[in-house]
Amino acid sequence: MSATTTPVLFSDLGRRAAPPTIARLMTVAIETPELLSLAAGFTDNRTLPAGEVADVARSLAAGSSDPEYLQYGTNQGRQGLRRVLGERLRSTEPAYSAEQLAERMIVTNGSQQALYLAAQVLCNPGDIVLVDRPSYFVFLEVLLGLGIQARSLPTHADGSLDATKLGEMLDAMKARGEADRIRAVYFVSYFSNPSARSLSAQEKAGIADALQRRGLTVPVIEDAAYRDLYFQAPHNAPSVLSMEEWGPFPKLYLSTLTKPFATGLKVGYGVCTHPELLKKLLHVKGHHDFGSANFNQAVLEKVIADGGFERQLKRIRPMYAAKMEALHASLEAAGLERAGWRWNRPDGGLYLWLEAPSDVDTRLDSRFCKECLEAGVVYVPGDLCFGDEAPTHFVRLSFGVLEPNDLAEAGRRFGSVAARFR
Amino acid sequence: MSATTTPVLFSDLGRRAAPPTIARLMTVAIETPELLSLAAGFTDNRTLPAGEVADVARSLAAGSSDPEYLQYGTNQGRQGLRRVLGERLRSTEPAYSAEQLAERMIVTNGSQQALYLAAQVLCNPGDIVLVDRPSYFVFLEVLLGLGIQARSLPTHADGSLDATKLGEMLDAMKARGEADRIRAVYFVSYFSNPSARSLSAQEKAGIADALQRRGLTVPVIEDAAYRDLYFQAPHNAPSVLSMEEWGPFPKLYLSTLTKPFATGLKVGYGVCTHPELLKKLLHVKGHHDFGSANFNQAVLEKVIADGGFERQLKRIRPMYAAKMEALHASLEAAGLERAGWRWNRPDGGLYLWLEAPSDVDTRLDSRFCKECLEAGVVYVPGDLCFGDEAPTHFVRLSFGVLEPNDLAEAGRRFGSVAARFR
Repeated sequence: MSATTTPVLFSDLGRRAAPPTIARLMTVAIETPELLSLAAGFTDNRTLPAGEVADVARSLAAGSSDPEYLQYGTNQGRQGLRRVLGERLRSTEPAYSAEQLAERMIVTNGSQQALYLAAQVLCNPGDIVLVDRPSYFVFLEVLLGLGIQARSLPTHADGSLDATKLGEMLDAMKARGEADRIRAVYFVSYFSNPSARSLSAQEKAGIADALQRRGLTVPVIEDAAYRDLYFQAPHNAPSVLSMEEWGPFPKLYLSTLTKPFATGLKVGYGVCTHPELLKKLLHVKGHHDFGSANFNQAVLEKVIADGGFERQLKRIRPMYAAKMEALHASLEAAGLERAGWRWNRPDGGLYLWLEAPSDVDTRLDSRFCKECLEAGVVYVPGDLCFGDEAPTHFVRLSFGVLEPNDLAEAGRRFGSVAARFR
Repeated sequence: MSATTTPVLFSDLGRRAAPPTIARLMTVAIETPELLSLAAGFTDNRTLPAGEVADVARSLAAGSSDPEYLQYGTNQGRQGLRRVLGERLRSTEPAYSAEQLAERMIVTNGSQQALYLAAQVLCNPGDIVLVDRPSYFVFLEVLLGLGIQARSLPTHADGSLDATKLGEMLDAMKARGEADRIRAVYFVSYFSNPSARSLSAQEKAGIADALQRRGLTVPVIEDAAYRDLYFQAPHNAPSVLSMEEWGPFPKLYLSTLTKPFATGLKVGYGVCTHPELLKKLLHVKGHHDFGSANFNQAVLEKVIADGGFERQLKRIRPMYAAKMEALHASLEAAGLERAGWRWNRPDGGLYLWLEAPSDVDTRLDSRFCKECLEAGVVYVPGDLCFGDEAPTHFVRLSFGVLEPNDLAEAGRRFGSVAARFR
């Protein structure tokens, strides 16, 4: 006979589940419009292609007597969308034909869902994923939520990957019997969230080499969400899909149509070179939702096929470049460098990644953070962006949302607080 | 030192993941247009509101200089959509105000995602969910995929729930020490997929009573996906949200805007009466995708607010009623009853649920199924719809997709095969 016990409501996963910071930050930004938010990785509402989406919806309705695009689609994703995406990706991934890319593709609810699916099918609780340093904080929360450990890829002082230290770390993990628990390696490789850095071909090759020498040909997840969002020119490193060094590894390349076109459409995709891994991702996707919204996929298929996607990118690139410059200039003018802060002027993406003097604590509950909120500006504390051994003196500022004047004002507010912490 | 071992690619969840039947059936239906499909639970393309969606997209674009609806929304779901849904639901759920319903709501990628989230946060592998008999087969696959056991609620011969037997079953589970592993109870209560049955208030109360008497006030998940899809009149039983008998239980009521309006928009929602459970669902939703597509939610908000949702329902109800009659009549005319088959004429939904003579095996690999495919008609084998002790002589036929003439032809084809198995 089982004794009557206090009922347990939640699973282990349910008990682990903690409020995702992204959700809190998004809520703060939406509910407190007087705050100037440098936190949320939103795009600029003024760049959103409202007219174009309406035109496409009309043209889809007019174009066929059979509105199949308002019907369920397939679990893998709309064939026509995968085809145009394959053709588009082909230009940077010569190792595959457009058809091969389309066949290996999975369309998801933003690339976020692809990250979640990958973590689910690859890792048990307690397993390890190697992540870049710093890394995408929502993915780090996914790992936490699934009970998976993140371990940072070692870096040089300038933020570039340190292949020698990585080798030493892997050897130490082998010696401790931990290496068998490494189930994937993850990095944001183009105009990264949060660091705005791009990985060079050499850096990526160094990771592959260090892993392969130790027999650790674990799946690699390359997050290229910001690849299209360069200011002047694309970052010229090939993706793992096209690098010989990554040949023996199962590869999952992720990108999105959400950030470059319209976040409100929420369509991302992955290309998976490992047939069995692709199947597993699709099976679990079948359980999540058996296919992303077909309508959104049809809209984006048409937008890409008609050239509207490239036009939108050409339109927004100089806008984001100007916004980056506005924030950068106002931080400089506020004397942030004199206050001991350091950052790089990025070549793309939506972020500035700032290093404060090491004694300035920038965490959510810090005095610095409180004073910023009082001054009317909010940011993402950098410590959230580290898989382990998180320093507490980094800050992510997004210039995605605000217009240049507001960015300048937000930079002034931020700078005035920073000046008090010299 | 860890020995070099064959690398393990997949997690336990990854290894368990099997092709979802829904995905296979949807692919068969889409790729073999000459087949008359009575399988997929699609709606009728001719009923899809293409013009209305285009009008709404245009009017959203024209209505505001700030196209926030193309920006990320919130993790919980668009406030305006939750408000109109709360107002709409209020008419059948007097126990709550519209505001309370909106506050307790989570908007998801179809109600499917809400089912997945609930299973994730409530159940560990090996735990038990009580399910109706028959039950929604995609949810049964979700449970399988997460390593969760389904246990059927006992029924009378006519398909109605047998509260006495349920009590005996729960007592036996207690005696075996299994009852502590029961983590939720799930049922499709209005024009069910697959049985087309609706649960009476008395049946629902019987489940609550049997559980509560044994101290098993586990979360109840009521799947009301087809509640709006009645032919003549709504099914008059209240939902668990409004039933005193379910008062002490955490309740999750699920519905969808996908089936009644446009499957291609993929927007579902849940109302959760248990604040902590709602939080947990939201946390994991934050990891899945941190919010469903805002655009789709804005379209549906406007459609509901402008009365377009009710107009669409008024338009499609008689169409589905006529389609049901067409299929029903052609099965009758094909002599299916004389061949020993039994089914009820439903009052709503998209399905006929057929019981064959008990010696007719209707499973996917059966001779019957092969002969149906050869005759050019496909169905969902009923055995997929049982959580346990699956009989092999049931069939789900959907009249959602085909037009009446094709339904009549599909019925003839099905009937001609059935006649050979007398």
